[in-house]
Amino acid sequence: MMLVTRKLEFCASHRLHNPRFSDERNREIYGSCNNPNGHGHNYTLEVTVAGHPDPATGMVLELRTLKHLVQTHLIDSVDHKNLNVDVPFLQETIPTLENLAVKFWDILEPHIENGRLYEIRLYESDRNFVVYRGKNRERPD
Amino acid sequence: MMLVTRKLEFCASHRLHNPRFSDERNREIYGSCNNPNGHGHNYTLEVTVAGHPDPATGMVLELRTLKHLVQTHLIDSVDHKNLNVDVPFLQETIPTLENLAVKFWDILEPHIENGRLYEIRLYESDRNFVVYRGKNRERPD
Amino acid sequence: MMLVTRKLEFCASHRLHNPRFSDERNREIYGSCNNPNGHGHNYTLEVTVAGHPDPATGMVLELRTLKHLVQTHLIDSVDHKNLNVDVPFLQETIPTLENLAVKFWDILEPHIENGRLYEIRLYESDRNFVVYRGKNRERPD
Amino acid sequence: MMLVTRKLEFCASHRLHNPRFSDERNREIYGSCNNPNGHGHNYTLEVTVAGHPDPATGMVLELRTLKHLVQTHLIDSVDHKNLNVDVPFLQETIPTLENLAVKFWDILEPHIENGRLYEIRLYESDRNFVVYRGKNRERPD
Amino acid sequence: MMLVTRKLEFCASHRLHNPRFSDERNREIYGSCNNPNGHGHNYTLEVTVAGHPDPATGMVLELRTLKHLVQTHLIDSVDHKNLNVDVPFLQETIPTLENLAVKFWDILEPHIENGRLYEIRLYESDRNFVVYRGKNRERPD
Amino acid sequence: MMLVTRKLEFCASHRLHNPRFSDERNREIYGSCNNPNGHGHNYTLEVTVAGHPDPATGMVLELRTLKHLVQTHLIDSVDHKNLNVDVPFLQETIPTLENLAVKFWDILEPHIENGRLYEIRLYESDRNFVVYRGKNRERPD
Repeated sequence: MMLVTRKLEFCASHRLHNPRFSDERNREIYGSCNNPNGHGHNYTLEVTVAGHPDPATGMVLELRTLKHLVQTHLIDSVDHKNLNVDVPFLQETIPTLENLAVKFWDILEPHIENGRLYEIRLYESDRNFVVYRGKNRERPD
Repeated sequence: MMLVTRKLEFCASHRLHNPRFSDERNREIYGSCNNPNGHGHNYTLEVTVAGHPDPATGMVLELRTLKHLVQTHLIDSVDHKNLNVDVPFLQETIPTLENLAVKFWDILEPHIENGRLYEIRLYESDRNFVVYRGKNRERPD
Repeated sequence: MMLVTRKLEFCASHRLHNPRFSDERNREIYGSCNNPNGHGHNYTLEVTVAGHPDPATGMVLELRTLKHLVQTHLIDSVDHKNLNVDVPFLQETIPTLENLAVKFWDILEPHIENGRLYEIRLYESDRNFVVYRGKNRERPD
Repeated sequence: MMLVTRKLEFCASHRLHNPRFSDERNREIYGSCNNPNGHGHNYTLEVTVAGHPDPATGMVLELRTLKHLVQTHLIDSVDHKNLNVDVPFLQETIPTLENLAVKFWDILEPHIENGRLYEIRLYESDRNFVVYRGKNRERPD
Repeated sequence: MMLVTRKLEFCASHRLHNPRFSDERNREIYGSCNNPNGHGHNYTLEVTVAGHPDPATGMVLELRTLKHLVQTHLIDSVDHKNLNVDVPFLQETIPTLENLAVKFWDILEPHIENGRLYEIRLYESDRNFVVYRGKNRERPD
Repeated sequence: MMLVTRKLEFCASHRLHNPRFSDERNREIYGSCNNPNGHGHNYTLEVTVAGHPDPATGMVLELRTLKHLVQTHLIDSVDHKNLNVDVPFLQETIPTLENLAVKFWDILEPHIENGRLYEIRLYESDRNFVVYRGKNRERPD
């Protein structure tokens, strides 16, 4: 078993706000991330696939193929975008790191043909990041 | 002569758009940075002061003081903000790296008391950055 | 299940030395880290919490809260300090990465209220680091 | 249980090519990595050992010893080398990240005396990397 | 006056060898970089242009244009290549960092239309790099 | 003219304290860096030499030679040391970044034979650094 990872980046703006909460409650929960006009980040996304290397090629999958899948299905939809407004699959979603990671997993997972999707790692800065390994994984490890 | 640098970070959203240009011309010039709903970055700001170390302290200036100046006069105004809307000193300014660097210089320069402001270096990603050394410097070096 | 990580930094000095060993044995085990007058590092600490995102907020916990906990309970005690002398909870402890990670876990773990502490990752440089996941975890994964 | 990691670097050239495939098939699978005259990378290798800290030393193992093992058994054989031609243990091996990780594991594993080899992490750039945890580990956890 | 920089990367193999020197002299000068079968690097190239921002656009030049120029005229020729064999403009050139920087300057300089080429910065690792500012610059600053 | 840089690292402890100042004045100037038992850093040192590449070798100087000079004359004296106590050439010197940079320049400069020492760049963290270019350089550029 081998884990293969491809890292990509995108830059986007967002605002953390739950319309069902009061403005005061929103500020309390989300702090400066609740700024009404939004703010933004350079996000880093690491996609990890688990599989057995093909003895003939020495590879679990072609990293160009993985890059192309992530670029097409995720990055092209979120790069240089406002995550609250511009992204069809994020409508009705508060764009926290946690929610983004789950959405990214659900979109990408059906497209992985060699090996299986093992992990989505999403950084909004080098200080804050989340790791998600799918809803069927009871233990995060 | 010694150069002393302090690095700080902020995250913000922006849109590059000149209202005097047509929409088509704006897209042509600014590309995906013209996205109507904006996008965002983790910006890195390096502020460099030139001076002679004080023989008694061995320092050009106290880096805590420099950090405090940059935090108070710049970072607090732009961090977790929309640069097109939220920042008084950026009204009427297209928030390109170049324009931000000049504005930051003009705001910070009068507050440097030990040594003189030598350079503003501003990154919007680790791939794109500008360096500005003031309007009286004919040569950038 | 989701893993959420906050990274913080501190700088400190230390000396690796076991007073029950001979000087020669100490030099043999700890090498240059046994230098009698100590040396120092910029440490990087990553604290990871595992939990389920709250559907209402989209977050496992507020990263500001996690940062505040780590800052208050750990960083304030060790930043700009001598780990052999200045830190009450490290008295009688040889300040290796391994011992620091266990101490940090034991101090921080009771304060995590949303989710549970999953991992302490401690770097003394970008070349050397340890990962600790608690004494009840038989397997490190 | 504690994980201890040491990072080392090496630079090398390689070509991905399977002589049993047609030239066209090789180009299809390996893309620009099939360039007949090769290309190269600064590789980063992280070696992780799992173990219990010795209460007397506060360490799982001496990182100098781990560094020395990795340097002697791996880095000295691959640094500033052509991986297709110059490395005895890579003869008959297509030098993909996956194949390199398995070979590195098999060479290094018998030499780890304190603790057990837990993970080989190999980067060919900061965008592409693999993780390997041994052939007896059914789950990559 | 403003400096605007775009960073790009390429990976390549090379061998440092002067056929007019003896083998012994080559090994003495170039050390392990003289390995007959070559080795390789992930190179980082920073291209800096100096100019005055256009008041209408707030930019010295469009970074997409600069990226496109560097990609087309330089990166496409050297990425995933053997610098001793595959690159027409490097025939008869020993591919040291210094020689690469001068060649890159000479190729790129005529294509910069807004502003003027100010600096080529070329890293073969994060430990070794050169800076070149053109043959007419008597002083490197 | 070409600038060639080699980066090295060292880790050390220090305390900023001027015995001619009162304790209160020392705390006021140096803040937490005045902690009586010291603290420490992973320092990064970049040494830059300016020169003309030798047409026969394509190099200003051999980077191995530069590395060896810096290692021997500087790093071996300060790595894993207490800068206030252990370093002969720092006796009577308050170990600020500024003072270290001047001392490093004065020690290294006579040993540079190919080209001339152009710049010492010293980081105590990725947020704080100084640049020194020698006492005869009236302008820091």
